[in-house]
Amino acid sequence: MSQHDFAAVILAAGKGTRMKSDLHKVLHPIAGRPMLKHLMASVEALGPKKQVVVVGAGRDQVESAVGDAADTCLQEPQLGTGHAVQQAQERLSGFSGDVLVLYGDVPFVRGETMQAMLDRLHEADAPKVVVLGFEPDDALAYGRVIADDAGRIAKMVEFKDASEDERTCRLCNSGLMAARAEDMFALLDRVGNDNAQGEYYLPDIVNIAIADGDICAAVTARDPGEVAGINSRGELAAAEALWQAEQREHWMAEGVTLRAPDTVFFSWDTHLGRDVTVDPNVVFGPGVTVADGAHIKSFSHIEGASVGEKAQVGPYARLRPGAVMAKDSFVGNFVEMKNAHLGEGAKASHLTYLGDAEVGARANIGAGTITCNYDGYFKYRTEIGEGAFIGSNSALIAPVRIGRDAIVAAGSTVSRDVADGDLRMVRGEQIVKPGWADRFHDAMRKKKAAKKG
Amino acid sequence: MSQHDFAAVILAAGKGTRMKSDLHKVLHPIAGRPMLKHLMASVEALGPKKQVVVVGAGRDQVESAVGDAADTCLQEPQLGTGHAVQQAQERLSGFSGDVLVLYGDVPFVRGETMQAMLDRLHEADAPKVVVLGFEPDDALAYGRVIADDAGRIAKMVEFKDASEDERTCRLCNSGLMAARAEDMFALLDRVGNDNAQGEYYLPDIVNIAIADGDICAAVTARDPGEVAGINSRGELAAAEALWQAEQREHWMAEGVTLRAPDTVFFSWDTHLGRDVTVDPNVVFGPGVTVADGAHIKSFSHIEGASVGEKAQVGPYARLRPGAVMAKDSFVGNFVEMKNAHLGEGAKASHLTYLGDAEVGARANIGAGTITCNYDGYFKYRTEIGEGAFIGSNSALIAPVRIGRDAIVAAGSTVSRDVADGDLRMVRGEQIVKPGWADRFHDAMRKKKAAKKG
Amino acid sequence: MSQHDFAAVILAAGKGTRMKSDLHKVLHPIAGRPMLKHLMASVEALGPKKQVVVVGAGRDQVESAVGDAADTCLQEPQLGTGHAVQQAQERLSGFSGDVLVLYGDVPFVRGETMQAMLDRLHEADAPKVVVLGFEPDDALAYGRVIADDAGRIAKMVEFKDASEDERTCRLCNSGLMAARAEDMFALLDRVGNDNAQGEYYLPDIVNIAIADGDICAAVTARDPGEVAGINSRGELAAAEALWQAEQREHWMAEGVTLRAPDTVFFSWDTHLGRDVTVDPNVVFGPGVTVADGAHIKSFSHIEGASVGEKAQVGPYARLRPGAVMAKDSFVGNFVEMKNAHLGEGAKASHLTYLGDAEVGARANIGAGTITCNYDGYFKYRTEIGEGAFIGSNSALIAPVRIGRDAIVAAGSTVSRDVADGDLRMVRGEQIVKPGWADRFHDAMRKKKAAKKG
Repeated sequence: MSQHDFAAVILAAGKGTRMKSDLHKVLHPIAGRPMLKHLMASVEALGPKKQVVVVGAGRDQVESAVGDAADTCLQEPQLGTGHAVQQAQERLSGFSGDVLVLYGDVPFVRGETMQAMLDRLHEADAPKVVVLGFEPDDALAYGRVIADDAGRIAKMVEFKDASEDERTCRLCNSGLMAARAEDMFALLDRVGNDNAQGEYYLPDIVNIAIADGDICAAVTARDPGEVAGINSRGELAAAEALWQAEQREHWMAEGVTLRAPDTVFFSWDTHLGRDVTVDPNVVFGPGVTVADGAHIKSFSHIEGASVGEKAQVGPYARLRPGAVMAKDSFVGNFVEMKNAHLGEGAKASHLTYLGDAEVGARANIGAGTITCNYDGYFKYRTEIGEGAFIGSNSALIAPVRIGRDAIVAAGSTVSRDVADGDLRMVRGEQIVKPGWADRFHDAMRKKKAAKKG
Repeated sequence: MSQHDFAAVILAAGKGTRMKSDLHKVLHPIAGRPMLKHLMASVEALGPKKQVVVVGAGRDQVESAVGDAADTCLQEPQLGTGHAVQQAQERLSGFSGDVLVLYGDVPFVRGETMQAMLDRLHEADAPKVVVLGFEPDDALAYGRVIADDAGRIAKMVEFKDASEDERTCRLCNSGLMAARAEDMFALLDRVGNDNAQGEYYLPDIVNIAIADGDICAAVTARDPGEVAGINSRGELAAAEALWQAEQREHWMAEGVTLRAPDTVFFSWDTHLGRDVTVDPNVVFGPGVTVADGAHIKSFSHIEGASVGEKAQVGPYARLRPGAVMAKDSFVGNFVEMKNAHLGEGAKASHLTYLGDAEVGARANIGAGTITCNYDGYFKYRTEIGEGAFIGSNSALIAPVRIGRDAIVAAGSTVSRDVADGDLRMVRGEQIVKPGWADRFHDAMRKKKAAKKG
Repeated sequence: MSQHDFAAVILAAGKGTRMKSDLHKVLHPIAGRPMLKHLMASVEALGPKKQVVVVGAGRDQVESAVGDAADTCLQEPQLGTGHAVQQAQERLSGFSGDVLVLYGDVPFVRGETMQAMLDRLHEADAPKVVVLGFEPDDALAYGRVIADDAGRIAKMVEFKDASEDERTCRLCNSGLMAARAEDMFALLDRVGNDNAQGEYYLPDIVNIAIADGDICAAVTARDPGEVAGINSRGELAAAEALWQAEQREHWMAEGVTLRAPDTVFFSWDTHLGRDVTVDPNVVFGPGVTVADGAHIKSFSHIEGASVGEKAQVGPYARLRPGAVMAKDSFVGNFVEMKNAHLGEGAKASHLTYLGDAEVGARANIGAGTITCNYDGYFKYRTEIGEGAFIGSNSALIAPVRIGRDAIVAAGSTVSRDVADGDLRMVRGEQIVKPGWADRFHDAMRKKKAAKKG
């Protein structure tokens, strides 16, 4: 929690042409969550008084993604970053704390970095504006922040306008800024658009403040990666890769075995217990919790599911939202679970669909079992009692209840309840035609030969 | 299209011992296409008058792969690269344009590079021979091309014969050459085999021409990777990796999201639309087109298939040749489609085999549905009407037609047509044995205990 | 085989806290085999007189894993590496050869390196102790071995005690030592614990011997990686990655095509024939042999299985222990085989479970076939004759025998044998309700609308 009141203004109006997408740039997901939401969550953790997202292009999409989590304001037309921040002024009327300017396409700024910017505003020299600088390995054509050792800024300069000497400066301008609200908006009112694009640039507030004789200060990002902007699908993939790499390191340090870390993909909220083993090629979607000692085998795909202690999953297990596996339960190959509970020690080992189902402890679901949970209009539930045995290739037509320890014989289509301890068997007429197959083979071979001949 | 007539001679007679394979080296596939075919396609795009492939070892395999796409000629015995090109002379009788010499195991030379070689032949200084040089990061033991800044060659020298000074030269000999046909064959007639291997070396034509006082010129490959030869499975894998990396960059730049680019494998002819999303671990075989906005989920395997706009595929979907998914259709986990059409908005969500089938719009194919399309001799088609509902665990014995909006009840084996709007249900005898399961469990537990005891 | 008698003492008493695991550190698997077992196998190949594993923390787990393959002795409490080796003295009573000290968490020391250490003991200068040194890229804070060009050691020094000059020495102490048994234990008796931890350090024997005027010698590991200790899940994953990379290179050099080597995971004992092709994303568990020319397609998971010549596997094939595929047989997508034999040219192409089964040559197993091999208590076998045809969606209730060339019609649940050349068909009552589906759709649409309204 920040010691001083602050509000975040997040710029998200730009079109993001390089993404070549109908989806607004800031809504492209990383680790299963829109990049804007990653940023908003980091801000939220610092306890802001308000978040204001500045929208423009793709306004409906962005507003709908933001929902109630923040205010929005419209920038239309889009006349530069300074202009964008100005649009937030009305939403911040009456607010007298600090304003932190962030970018929806720079989603991985660390909370501690934002906090450092806000704290810097309140140090003894009371800078008017705090700029987040970063030191990339290769400074390329970034604008430079010319500052002394204490971080006090002498000048902000675009690369194209920089002298040879200024270009040797390694501190680059990330574009992130902080200032007291009244300072921010007062300075923005003085920014002009006398440039090739005719735009109002946010960094100009720094040079204006310096010209006034005020102090402006730079804070340096610990890791240049945290201010990387995401403007293309390539940069999106690179950000995802970086995020995944960090998560893999994190979970290994917590006592998870990843046999081939590079082949395991986490969601932003995946949670794994101690002594969990994850084999190569596993994908986690949002909303997954895996308890201690569970084993997730190769080619499993898990989302919205809870995997119990020492449970075994896969290979080729597909757990969909609402799948809950109790302790020591087992889901094997080519099995799909959705909105279903598998009791302690229960097993669904092969080629099964468990949808909208409750399976009791120690029940055994045979290969090829299908819960028929849908009639084309509504969904219905299947209940399978403790210790029940569902023979292979059975279809259970929900709503239906199979009792405790009951047995459904293989190949049965069951549409009525089976009582505890009963057997239900559905059998067709057995027809045997002696020699028929031999005659069939003969006839077909001749037909095939005739077709070829 | 080249401005001047040219013919390509592609050397593909060598045995390729290091591949340790019964398949000829130039036929090993990269991105699902034999490396020789990659090269021939690049040549074809330049509009050659003729392509001649020089075959030797594994002659039948190579000739069969070449088919009608080029002439072939035989080099037997194999007495060096110069000797190999000579074998093509008869196939080029009457041809008076340029000859470009290529290698079947150097498949990724760019078209623009070949064109630059041919163009160089027709510049003002009219070189007798044009050599393709390259500048590897580490020149190692490659033969050197000693040339001036204008690319005029002073000398070609094998690494072992090179002076210390010559070895510092970075321009290496790729082996690719171009010359006018009459020059090429006249020079080749003068090449001797006075060397340790007793072979006729193609690069000797350069030194002969220079000794004649003629000009020979070098053209430098833009990327050293394009002249990399593929002589082992390791080099094959490296070439595949390079090719895949380029394709991933390409499709991301075109507006495709690859969540984990390194885990997506394309075929040489894969085509993806804008705003397609490909999740981790997807493999494309030859002949795939994916329309705008489609979502290919993890662990999908797609070949010879067309995926419609906004269609959803997988996870664990296997689309085989002839699979066509219309707009907004859905193929889910553990579903295989082959030579089948899935209508607009139709769904096959789980554990299904659709082979030789036509599924109408909005039809719903229940979990565990199998089209029985094969009787061991012939294949038959299944037709499923618009809006039809196939209950789970059904077997449809083709040829069979399920009508518009018709319903097949779960667990039915259907061998006769179902009319529009009808229900068909196949039900066996329901047998209930009260308490049987309890008695069975008791008996079996005793038996099991007895076995252990 | 070593020329001189030797015994190995393997230290495995430490707790391995950084693994954060209930499983002892040395039992964490790499390539499917506990790291301790990798080391013991390398030692075994040199023909030791004895292996002694020193256990402590997690004693029961380690002893159980060691089994009869070595002796164990207990270190309790754990007072340092010198103290650990001393505990093995009793197990080596009467043994007068060489003693090689190894570490259970340093599993990939090469046999040739161990042999070089033992050989060095018997060179003319007869060193009292031989130390294994290594030269890492970055020597960091490793203890240094100060030695002359002949490997004769002047001093062993901890990094913290080393002078600036000593720190420039690149030879680091791996901790591995060899000495004659009597020397080893005599020196150990003289090691004190006058240090911050109050522990008895094994390397002290070197300085004691040197102080006595005896020669001690260093042998340098060829590859610094072979003495890398594994102390965390991250290091475990790195060791696995290194091991996998070596295996991939190995099999490619042997004539195996790996389209995407980084996505193929081998077990420690995987064996592949010539011209085997492995597509992207394949996982091998222990006990797999693949014969020449077989093709393993993407997303296959194979363990304890034998794949015959030119057999085709996958995509999405899951072969479990006891799966045996004969020449030219075929297992397709979403098929699981366990303890089952598939005859020459036989096929199980889709969505099938073959457990405890014998399938004859040329038999065709239709999509959705399930062998019902389990009644909840015991397993039973299914036999399918040569050339038999099992129609799709059939359940074969074991024990059952389907004869030669016999046919089981689609959708049949078969609990009795089918004789050679017979057809068996199980059919339920066919019920057709004209117009029922249309009326159902009408009613349900109204109900759905009512619910929403």
